[in-house]
Amino acid sequence: MTEKSLIRKLTAIFSADVEGYSRLMGDDEAATIHTLTSYKKAMTELIKQHRGRVVDAPGDNLLAEFASVVDAVQCAVEVQHELAERNKELPNKRKMVFRIGVNIGDVVQENDRIYGDGVNIAARLESMADSGGICISRAAYDQVKYKLPFEFRYEGEQLGKNIKEPLRVYKVLIDSEIDKASDYTPL
Amino acid sequence: MTEKSLIRKLTAIFSADVEGYSRLMGDDEAATIHTLTSYKKAMTELIKQHRGRVVDAPGDNLLAEFASVVDAVQCAVEVQHELAERNKELPNKRKMVFRIGVNIGDVVQENDRIYGDGVNIAARLESMADSGGICISRAAYDQVKYKLPFEFRYEGEQLGKNIKEPLRVYKVLIDSEIDKASDYTPL
Repeated sequence: MTEKSLIRKLTAIFSADVEGYSRLMGDDEAATIHTLTSYKKAMTELIKQHRGRVVDAPGDNLLAEFASVVDAVQCAVEVQHELAERNKELPNKRKMVFRIGVNIGDVVQENDRIYGDGVNIAARLESMADSGGICISRAAYDQVKYKLPFEFRYEGEQLGKNIKEPLRVYKVLIDSEIDKASDYTPL
Repeated sequence: MTEKSLIRKLTAIFSADVEGYSRLMGDDEAATIHTLTSYKKAMTELIKQHRGRVVDAPGDNLLAEFASVVDAVQCAVEVQHELAERNKELPNKRKMVFRIGVNIGDVVQENDRIYGDGVNIAARLESMADSGGICISRAAYDQVKYKLPFEFRYEGEQLGKNIKEPLRVYKVLIDSEIDKASDYTPL
């Protein structure tokens, strides 16, 4: 396929996964699947409310896209708030915590799927996030920094597996993190 | 309006204007309008071929948007080639040369219009381009650098009127410019 025949589009990519999923499944499969299903459903609802679309959600992963990266980051913050509330109802060892990465990519669209290094980078950002946290790329940060009321912290350049260049990573400081930004430790 | 009620989207913004338009108009109004109309028509056709849309085209300006910034930069190069060909038919003092700027923005969409600093920055980039040239932002460059066969040259940080931060500007080296990149002078 030549570049010209590809249908491309700029999109905001939202990638989420569960931290410690294997441990949770090892401890209690049925309870983990139950929580995962209900959390994914809540996340999907919030994604729709922010005009996003779930592209794929295999296992403990969820990939979504948004026309706007402002919407994507706003949604990611609301997802983490919502899931933190829900986790309060669960015993410590059953709490299910997601990490989220947000990036911008000029991706290739084929039917309902999206392809491109922008998607891989979103997954890499997600893996750099704290439990219950959000990491975004510089490309995403540059678009949202003056448009959203959140604080961000530059995490420096990070190397990603199979990614050509170091990623410049920003962490979204969610609520309580702002108060203690000076002596911040992961949740 | 609150942030939540705004419809936002990531878009590639293409901004073009005629260099020395006032001089051309002062020399020969009728001929200038004739050329301008025909050049804008050719540009609009190429924009459509690259899945873009003309948003507005007042006077010697043309603002277009593309879902993909790869498409936008590819289109900008083809526009400059096409207009360079057409200019060969015109006497020197009647040649009409466009400058083009390309940027990415998370813009607000209202009906067919788009608003946001991403649009202002595209216009600023355009004003930094050489005659018949193309300047793109770092945000655009980061998305296209591995996806298009063009060479780019970093022009450093440039200050823009009413723009909060210095712009990191890249020039697209079009064809002949590549051969002479070492001793490059504007066309």
